[in-house]
Amino acid sequence: MGKSNKKSSKKSQIAIQKSVLCQELKPFGIGLVGFGTIGTGVVHTLTENRDVISKNLGLSLKLVKIVDIDVKKDRGVKVSPALLSTDYRDATRNPDVQVVIELIGGTHPAREIVEDGLRNGKHVVTANKELISKHGRELHETARRHGVCLLHEASVGGGIPILTPLLTCLKANRIKQVVGIVNGTTNYILTRMEQEGVEFENALKEAQQKGYAEADPTSDVDGYDSAYKIAILTSVAFGKGVRVEQIYREGIRKVTRRDIQYAGELGYRIKLIAVSRATEGGQDVRVHPALLPLSHPLASIHGVLNAVYVEGSPIGSLMFVGEGAGASATSSAVIGDVIEIAEGRAQNTGRLRDLYEKTEIVGTEKLSFPFYMRMIVDDKPGVLADITSILSEKCVSISSVVQKARIADKAEIVWLTHPSPEKSVREAVAQIRKLRCVKEIPSVIHVM
Amino acid sequence: MGKSNKKSSKKSQIAIQKSVLCQELKPFGIGLVGFGTIGTGVVHTLTENRDVISKNLGLSLKLVKIVDIDVKKDRGVKVSPALLSTDYRDATRNPDVQVVIELIGGTHPAREIVEDGLRNGKHVVTANKELISKHGRELHETARRHGVCLLHEASVGGGIPILTPLLTCLKANRIKQVVGIVNGTTNYILTRMEQEGVEFENALKEAQQKGYAEADPTSDVDGYDSAYKIAILTSVAFGKGVRVEQIYREGIRKVTRRDIQYAGELGYRIKLIAVSRATEGGQDVRVHPALLPLSHPLASIHGVLNAVYVEGSPIGSLMFVGEGAGASATSSAVIGDVIEIAEGRAQNTGRLRDLYEKTEIVGTEKLSFPFYMRMIVDDKPGVLADITSILSEKCVSISSVVQKARIADKAEIVWLTHPSPEKSVREAVAQIRKLRCVKEIPSVIHVM
Repeated sequence: MGKSNKKSSKKSQIAIQKSVLCQELKPFGIGLVGFGTIGTGVVHTLTENRDVISKNLGLSLKLVKIVDIDVKKDRGVKVSPALLSTDYRDATRNPDVQVVIELIGGTHPAREIVEDGLRNGKHVVTANKELISKHGRELHETARRHGVCLLHEASVGGGIPILTPLLTCLKANRIKQVVGIVNGTTNYILTRMEQEGVEFENALKEAQQKGYAEADPTSDVDGYDSAYKIAILTSVAFGKGVRVEQIYREGIRKVTRRDIQYAGELGYRIKLIAVSRATEGGQDVRVHPALLPLSHPLASIHGVLNAVYVEGSPIGSLMFVGEGAGASATSSAVIGDVIEIAEGRAQNTGRLRDLYEKTEIVGTEKLSFPFYMRMIVDDKPGVLADITSILSEKCVSISSVVQKARIADKAEIVWLTHPSPEKSVREAVAQIRKLRCVKEIPSVIHVM
Repeated sequence: MGKSNKKSSKKSQIAIQKSVLCQELKPFGIGLVGFGTIGTGVVHTLTENRDVISKNLGLSLKLVKIVDIDVKKDRGVKVSPALLSTDYRDATRNPDVQVVIELIGGTHPAREIVEDGLRNGKHVVTANKELISKHGRELHETARRHGVCLLHEASVGGGIPILTPLLTCLKANRIKQVVGIVNGTTNYILTRMEQEGVEFENALKEAQQKGYAEADPTSDVDGYDSAYKIAILTSVAFGKGVRVEQIYREGIRKVTRRDIQYAGELGYRIKLIAVSRATEGGQDVRVHPALLPLSHPLASIHGVLNAVYVEGSPIGSLMFVGEGAGASATSSAVIGDVIEIAEGRAQNTGRLRDLYEKTEIVGTEKLSFPFYMRMIVDDKPGVLADITSILSEKCVSISSVVQKARIADKAEIVWLTHPSPEKSVREAVAQIRKLRCVKEIPSVIHVM
């Protein structure tokens, strides 16, 4: 045995040396489409870390083409004018390009560009969460048909390695739930509301001034961005494809600093969470603000940080924390994907990435949660009795009730319920709202 | 272009279907050496999650042989007697085994078993931090010579995916520092000391009763276990091989509940940390208790949890949190590694894993840190002047000083210094210790 083994080991040694040699001779060509903030970050990192990348990789990554509608603007990075083009086909159909990086965002024309790349035998790397959450399945199928890879680590959690670990290291696990704080803008706003005691509108303005929020903040504050990301996490962690429009989605516009303060007094912190859970009734996927107990790992994720919490068997619980946006962090994930492909690993990631089943989301009406409710009521006898009798009729049981501030002749009451069917809680709230003694129910928030 | 493309895509589709078919026909054979707690966990997970693994993987993992010196004991998992053996060569030289899992721990005979596996063309997966930190380089070279892989994700952080992300997703980064809470036993002890206000000895006893600490707790509480792990992280994150014996190592035996309480009052929490940093003078690698500001992400890691904090460019900062030990979590990482190999990804991870350079560790005397010091001194005039004049001579500047409890005619003084060369601090402390008015200096602890 010893002898034949020596021979074969010598052979494999030569083979390894040869392959290293070949790789070193042939750079891996990149066609970058989208030369905005993230695109500039990618070019910057490729230049700045050229030595690290080639040392770690044993082959060099080469920018072959950079495409953008505006190729005149100075981005503060040195780029040979010969690399620039306004026609994406200079990237997607370039014989020197092995991988197309799509960083223009949105679904159109991003989808056409990605498809053109895949159909022309190019691997594709993208950070585009909207595109992948809406058309990932078809695009993955196209990639598979053409024998190339479509990677999108940067589409969730920016630079945080989360999709790749789920698809590799954690593959032996039965994933039970994934809960993410996957939108840095809203987490920043909620953190400022808590720390500075300001209202949503002021915190939003501050986030806009600091460049954390867009002029039109809808995608972030109304939870669309988080919904895209939890749809992608659902496909990767559970192998289930859900339609983004089906995801229950509630943003943070209605969260007030008063709720944040009361939550704190009760031992909770309010976060915008994106959840995906395997339940007996089906896949539970939703985005909404929630009161997290202060002891929950996600409760200590502050500011623009993102975090993804994973529960599975046998792993138990895990959390990945990092910068969920920004050109630098995102470029790490984008180039990481390019390296996955260049080193030939992505080609072997197997099934999960593209063979996920289409699945329906279980309606929140079938699920039970504890709820936090804040009500403004007349400060007079019998009010509590009226409210509790409705709650009791709907089988919503109360775990605690606190009378908070008194405003004129009104009282503010905060309720925490035991886990109750969401449908019953919503119905009870609708009935309570109709009571004469109830002036307002400003907040009904999930508790985790 | 369209035409030839269609043809080639059809070809590749057939190729993919064929390869899926072949994989399904041929199971991937595992030879498990070490049927203790972790080994039993691996067998349990392979059985329990068989459906998930084969669905995600497209091939089945098959236990071909289980080796242990004791094959009679009932481990609570069903195993065919035909699988059991007391001779490791039934695994390492078995033609039906593709990968050997080594889970006996220690360096002897683990090293011989791993080498025998590699030399016989078997891939090897191990959770053995001592073995890899001491002999990893040679073993990786042997693996390379024989064209097989040696993976050890479980050797650091139990089930937390940390080595693989560093070697893949984060490969474009220039890593600046890695700081870990990588020993659950000591973190549990420190957490209990803080939360219950008990002393080290009592917390240790409790940890032993709960099965978190061994009867002989040396490896954990004196920092050996953390030193093994930071040596491995240094090789993976920085591509630098350091000798374990060279690592500055200080355990938690001397940490008192008083220090923990004072640290808390000053806005810090004491944790046993393992650090590896690229500094101008060289690689800084050490294990010791440290005061972490409460705002540091690692400060909120409680109980038996482990966490690894990574700083790099362009990624910024990241943290990975999870269960750092235990049969279940560890089995996730071990089987994850097997899957890496079975899917052909590990073969392509390239350089970092085995080509790291040997390097010397920079001496702590060349480095500067802030320090926390607690002294018991005579409560009389002139004492502070005597001490501060020595500190001043050694250029150790004080950022804060607080006189704490008075015990009989003694005063207890707590100092925080500005970052100062460790050598100067140690020399100053040695001189201060000699002062007549100084009764005791129970604590000198790094501040992060």
